[in-house]
Amino acid sequence: MTVSRSVELAGHIIDSGTLQSCFGVIMDMGGSFEVEEFDIGRSKTEKSYARLVVSADTDDDLQTIIHELHQNGATPIDPRDATVEPAPADQVVPPGFYSTTNHPTDIRIEGEWLAVDRIEMDCAVVVERNGNGQPARARAKVLNAIEEGDLVVTGESGIRVRPPERPRERSGAFGFMQGGVSSERPSESTIEKIAEAITQTKAEDGSILAVCGPALIHSGAREDLARLVRKGYIDMLSAGNGFAVHDIERDLYGTSLGMNTETLDHPRRGHKHHIYALSEVIRAGSIENAVEDDLITSGVMYECVANDVPFVLAGSIRDDGPLPDTITDTIEAQNAIREQAHEADMVLMLSTLLHSVAVGNCLPSTTRVVCVDINPATVTQLLDRGSAQAVGMVTDIGTFIPMLADTILDSQ
Amino acid sequence: MTVSRSVELAGHIIDSGTLQSCFGVIMDMGGSFEVEEFDIGRSKTEKSYARLVVSADTDDDLQTIIHELHQNGATPIDPRDATVEPAPADQVVPPGFYSTTNHPTDIRIEGEWLAVDRIEMDCAVVVERNGNGQPARARAKVLNAIEEGDLVVTGESGIRVRPPERPRERSGAFGFMQGGVSSERPSESTIEKIAEAITQTKAEDGSILAVCGPALIHSGAREDLARLVRKGYIDMLSAGNGFAVHDIERDLYGTSLGMNTETLDHPRRGHKHHIYALSEVIRAGSIENAVEDDLITSGVMYECVANDVPFVLAGSIRDDGPLPDTITDTIEAQNAIREQAHEADMVLMLSTLLHSVAVGNCLPSTTRVVCVDINPATVTQLLDRGSAQAVGMVTDIGTFIPMLADTILDSQ
Amino acid sequence: MTVSRSVELAGHIIDSGTLQSCFGVIMDMGGSFEVEEFDIGRSKTEKSYARLVVSADTDDDLQTIIHELHQNGATPIDPRDATVEPAPADQVVPPGFYSTTNHPTDIRIEGEWLAVDRIEMDCAVVVERNGNGQPARARAKVLNAIEEGDLVVTGESGIRVRPPERPRERSGAFGFMQGGVSSERPSESTIEKIAEAITQTKAEDGSILAVCGPALIHSGAREDLARLVRKGYIDMLSAGNGFAVHDIERDLYGTSLGMNTETLDHPRRGHKHHIYALSEVIRAGSIENAVEDDLITSGVMYECVANDVPFVLAGSIRDDGPLPDTITDTIEAQNAIREQAHEADMVLMLSTLLHSVAVGNCLPSTTRVVCVDINPATVTQLLDRGSAQAVGMVTDIGTFIPMLADTILDSQ
Amino acid sequence: MTVSRSVELAGHIIDSGTLQSCFGVIMDMGGSFEVEEFDIGRSKTEKSYARLVVSADTDDDLQTIIHELHQNGATPIDPRDATVEPAPADQVVPPGFYSTTNHPTDIRIEGEWLAVDRIEMDCAVVVERNGNGQPARARAKVLNAIEEGDLVVTGESGIRVRPPERPRERSGAFGFMQGGVSSERPSESTIEKIAEAITQTKAEDGSILAVCGPALIHSGAREDLARLVRKGYIDMLSAGNGFAVHDIERDLYGTSLGMNTETLDHPRRGHKHHIYALSEVIRAGSIENAVEDDLITSGVMYECVANDVPFVLAGSIRDDGPLPDTITDTIEAQNAIREQAHEADMVLMLSTLLHSVAVGNCLPSTTRVVCVDINPATVTQLLDRGSAQAVGMVTDIGTFIPMLADTILDSQ
Repeated sequence: MTVSRSVELAGHIIDSGTLQSCFGVIMDMGGSFEVEEFDIGRSKTEKSYARLVVSADTDDDLQTIIHELHQNGATPIDPRDATVEPAPADQVVPPGFYSTTNHPTDIRIEGEWLAVDRIEMDCAVVVERNGNGQPARARAKVLNAIEEGDLVVTGESGIRVRPPERPRERSGAFGFMQGGVSSERPSESTIEKIAEAITQTKAEDGSILAVCGPALIHSGAREDLARLVRKGYIDMLSAGNGFAVHDIERDLYGTSLGMNTETLDHPRRGHKHHIYALSEVIRAGSIENAVEDDLITSGVMYECVANDVPFVLAGSIRDDGPLPDTITDTIEAQNAIREQAHEADMVLMLSTLLHSVAVGNCLPSTTRVVCVDINPATVTQLLDRGSAQAVGMVTDIGTFIPMLADTILDSQ
Repeated sequence: MTVSRSVELAGHIIDSGTLQSCFGVIMDMGGSFEVEEFDIGRSKTEKSYARLVVSADTDDDLQTIIHELHQNGATPIDPRDATVEPAPADQVVPPGFYSTTNHPTDIRIEGEWLAVDRIEMDCAVVVERNGNGQPARARAKVLNAIEEGDLVVTGESGIRVRPPERPRERSGAFGFMQGGVSSERPSESTIEKIAEAITQTKAEDGSILAVCGPALIHSGAREDLARLVRKGYIDMLSAGNGFAVHDIERDLYGTSLGMNTETLDHPRRGHKHHIYALSEVIRAGSIENAVEDDLITSGVMYECVANDVPFVLAGSIRDDGPLPDTITDTIEAQNAIREQAHEADMVLMLSTLLHSVAVGNCLPSTTRVVCVDINPATVTQLLDRGSAQAVGMVTDIGTFIPMLADTILDSQ
Repeated sequence: MTVSRSVELAGHIIDSGTLQSCFGVIMDMGGSFEVEEFDIGRSKTEKSYARLVVSADTDDDLQTIIHELHQNGATPIDPRDATVEPAPADQVVPPGFYSTTNHPTDIRIEGEWLAVDRIEMDCAVVVERNGNGQPARARAKVLNAIEEGDLVVTGESGIRVRPPERPRERSGAFGFMQGGVSSERPSESTIEKIAEAITQTKAEDGSILAVCGPALIHSGAREDLARLVRKGYIDMLSAGNGFAVHDIERDLYGTSLGMNTETLDHPRRGHKHHIYALSEVIRAGSIENAVEDDLITSGVMYECVANDVPFVLAGSIRDDGPLPDTITDTIEAQNAIREQAHEADMVLMLSTLLHSVAVGNCLPSTTRVVCVDINPATVTQLLDRGSAQAVGMVTDIGTFIPMLADTILDSQ
Repeated sequence: MTVSRSVELAGHIIDSGTLQSCFGVIMDMGGSFEVEEFDIGRSKTEKSYARLVVSADTDDDLQTIIHELHQNGATPIDPRDATVEPAPADQVVPPGFYSTTNHPTDIRIEGEWLAVDRIEMDCAVVVERNGNGQPARARAKVLNAIEEGDLVVTGESGIRVRPPERPRERSGAFGFMQGGVSSERPSESTIEKIAEAITQTKAEDGSILAVCGPALIHSGAREDLARLVRKGYIDMLSAGNGFAVHDIERDLYGTSLGMNTETLDHPRRGHKHHIYALSEVIRAGSIENAVEDDLITSGVMYECVANDVPFVLAGSIRDDGPLPDTITDTIEAQNAIREQAHEADMVLMLSTLLHSVAVGNCLPSTTRVVCVDINPATVTQLLDRGSAQAVGMVTDIGTFIPMLADTILDSQ
């Protein structure tokens, strides 16, 4: 027995690789196809159109292929509704639930396509109905946020994924952000491009999230990041307990990891400064209190408080202390990070793998991402998430931030 | 004005570098000294003795130097008591509190030296009194465990630190564990030495803690670690949510990170297997339930449950899920890790930086440590903590664990 | 003014990405196109055919686009001959010479397509004529081998490049060799696949070249590589002076880098053993002499001599010595390496960046490549050369070689 | 039977660790000792003196211990002459020849101590006599430079090694150069210190050697290094063929590795620019000719030619071309590098492992070394050679050189 179904593709389907992926999917999955209609764009401005009849040996196989074609941008001629099932208990999804990608996604409910709100990877899709029982919206929910009775999408029907097309022209302020990773790219020119992209994002009223690791402080880049916060180029900050402690250590004792960041000397007991800094803030009750008490008078955390830049300090098992501001529950911290991630138009990942992965997990594939680390493996891992506009730079955060700040602020 | 005080040193003070460090401390800190008496060990079996009169310009300077000499193994001729002050509130230490090293430490209270229990780095020392008001014991407490009224040691008097001497002879099963890190050491021979050290630790009724990262599963080492658990070579396990999820994914779907670990194929939707594995265990209620329900039938977590090997799964902000067994509060998780660390006689740090640092933070400098990672920077960072018996190996965990298991189990 | 020319494409042009690349080339380079004919393969077994009219503003632009389409697999309807010019002096190419890729390439001379012999990257193409003045063959020549009067291909006409299609089915012994690089792949399973590929290559009478770095010796893998040589699995060896010196040091003194590879002890003066080993072989006159004199009685170099496995030892500026067998002139050494590279059906790159790059520079894109190193950046760099069948493994050479030898030799 | 001999130590023998090392040597090597006299420096300005009677079971053992004590700074009370033997043939040393360290070394010949000229690691020591047969000088010679009849020092008698004492005070322009390697040090402050050290070296009329890898060009640092050459801060340059080719590619085509270093675009055929650049210089005959012909008009190589800064381009087996200026014989290249190394007062190792190792092999332990690379393993390997004044920085050469040039040149 052979079962068949028609799908269509439209747009720059050759140029963007869509047609090639779809052919690949069918062949990889043991199906076959006939091309019923093919209208190739006669020139570079015209779009193409193709209609394929896809065949497989069983209904299950066919549905699986059709689903995968969906995920690659093809649309069944006769789309079906998504199926939904209620969650049996809090945090428990129905068997066969649909797990999301980070690409823009639509769900077909009662013949209508609903865009899924707050899309991110590895979530369930929950359909909400309004007062009259009509489907009102679909949204992505992480497993631990599922509540008993939530209507969760299951199976593979009625789901449409739209992977972002990478723009052909590498132009505009963000054009270079399809460049991937390289440790052997001209550093100064790349920093200029990143500065332009930041300036352009702010010019478009976009929101910029800085995700920061403690190496930024140790390498002496603190004052220049503080300048960028003060001048309004950073709208939100995401970091860990250690970042804030070392930033404050520098303010209170002039050291980072116990080394004087200017003279490079190691004052006696310098390796205890971070624990003293911690105990000072604990005594004050919070970073904000410590700023108000004039205990903390400079640095990144100071500028965040002084300029109403909201920050999330997420706890980890390697923390000393922690600071009173640190969110020690990881689910609560993830939720705070999730809010930041969905609000951001551009994310700067600065020398932290753990926090960058946490933010990256919550990002739609359409958010702009700049990732900077001295370890090429970190940069590669962070960029490898299908973002349409992302750039990685393997460099020293201690020279990167000063040069970036100079480039942005001197061009004002 | 010049103030002076005498200190004495005894033992293999030249051979172990103690005398050299003490001379260095005095000169670095601006003091001066006279050698009043010096009895050099006439041969390699005799001990030496030295008495120095240390001088400085002010009482404060002198006290500071004396404290630092203490930390390096010298003893004042006329020791003073430690000072203690009550903690003003929960989690708040008195100003000037003494922050610990990870070396064995004694506190002098009412003329008696009390050994500090559960020593670890960056803690406060709390003196507890028994019913009749006598000092009963001193113990290290992390800042967040301090309770209002705890008697906290402050200042630098009456504190004695005993850095472990590295044994001169590199012999016995643990002799090679002073070898530091090398990526260019003979791999098979090093693995044989580690196997011997593990066997010896078990022969001495020691307790072995394995700290595991998910790379162990991805690289295919799962079955061999499971064998070691089953055969009783692992007494405790410390890991993150991801380790357990991927271990269970392998059991349920035959994949890790979506790749079939035997055929190296990528089954369709393989990249969703980890989220499916998660949802299965959430539905079962716990890993133990899932084992009892015959859902999970093999692997590291299975063997831990089957052989009553206690495990701690600590949460992190990059977790999916998490599993019901994962401790999401980082302070609670640290406390669980701390219990493991203090119980362990030997710690195997296997391909995880985050969890190894968390465990390492709680370890006294006398615990044996083996650290294995493919990234030399990780190994270097983990070994750089003053442990007297520690060895690092830069290798592939996916070949290391199988070879280690074969070596240990074949030699039985 | 607009000038136009027709090109055609045939084969699995969608599936293999050819059509997509060609569209991209035209648009990137400012040209335009009309699709005159398009016959899509109606099913996965049928081939497709497309004919495009390509237009540009100037003759030069058009020729440039046509050339680039060539490089991507399109063929002009009315191909022209390649142009050739004599080299004005030894090592000097005519201006505008054509510089090769490492893909199979044809040159059109007097209406006939000649395959270019010994293709490799960044060479000139020289056309040789036979006695009667007819073009007899075309071959790739590195710049330093060009002789005055050589007929060198210039410009971009009459050149056809055939990039290897990556086989769709990842099956057979070599199927896994399209897997790229991963440090998180199951190690044992990957080693089994590599063992199969080696066995299969030998079963097909293929020739295997091992390119070896000194880390192989330091990490204790020497005896197992020697076994593979002895058993006939290695047909040629390419290495540097240091590899041979350390291999011989191990034979003469039991050490590598001065460390006893079994006990892990450092015998006194061990760090001088490599220089003593060198002086012993210099005194003997050659490695072969030293084997015949029973000075060298085991190891990789010993087995090469004993089993008539030819080796090339290329000199470098960091060499001690060097050994009498080491080729100190780098051009002469490159020529020796080039012979090995062109003879090899499979290349094992084992823990050496310098020698692997040197071999890789000479390889056609059709040769099978296995690259093993503990540094992910090295593996990535080596695989990034367009080979159609290549696999990289980030692992410890000291565990890899023993496991590989066991897998190959135990399965006999 | 026990044999004994007296040795003495004088100076800051405790503070510098000398006494500790000597005790260790004796015990490690199975000897015993008595302390006959011990005068400890009573204060930090006084020197100490110790006389030991060292005993061992056999004459051979004793001599071996005495030699090792020598190497660690002790002096036998009754020193003996060094033994010398003639080399039996060119490049062949007598059995038992003494192989050098890179520390200042003296040889005792006929009762006189001769300092060994041009000391470097792993050499033989050759004694030259003047016309009247008197020993005139001792010099280090690499094995391949030994000539038949050279009087080569053998055995271990009559050799005195003076490891450089690391200065206690980390002050002066070079004080920070005992800081070892760190990737987490303040970048800007470290660059300022390096700039000071360079300025100070020039102020002392010292000679600065820059050892450069091609990453310097790819990362866009070329113009700033050229500035430093032009302004007289670089006295010699050591590099490979690739460095010069890419520097010239940038001048001729505006690209590096085919990427426009300013716009970050990849012009068509950009990946062929390096081979075109090569062929242009080959046609001109040399870099100097190409500068004189106005073919090359900017960049590092241009400034070297224009400012009479001598350069050595050493060949390697991975070279394209090579350039006519490249020394293709590795022994000849080593000799040229050796001349540079011995003339240099300060060496900047900039993003090249191969060339830095080659230079480092020839350096006495007293030369100042700055090593910069983005790979921490490279920096660690290069600094691990016992230099008394050396600093490593893990950073991006593409931001380091511009910041360094600004710091040096703006402070003029």
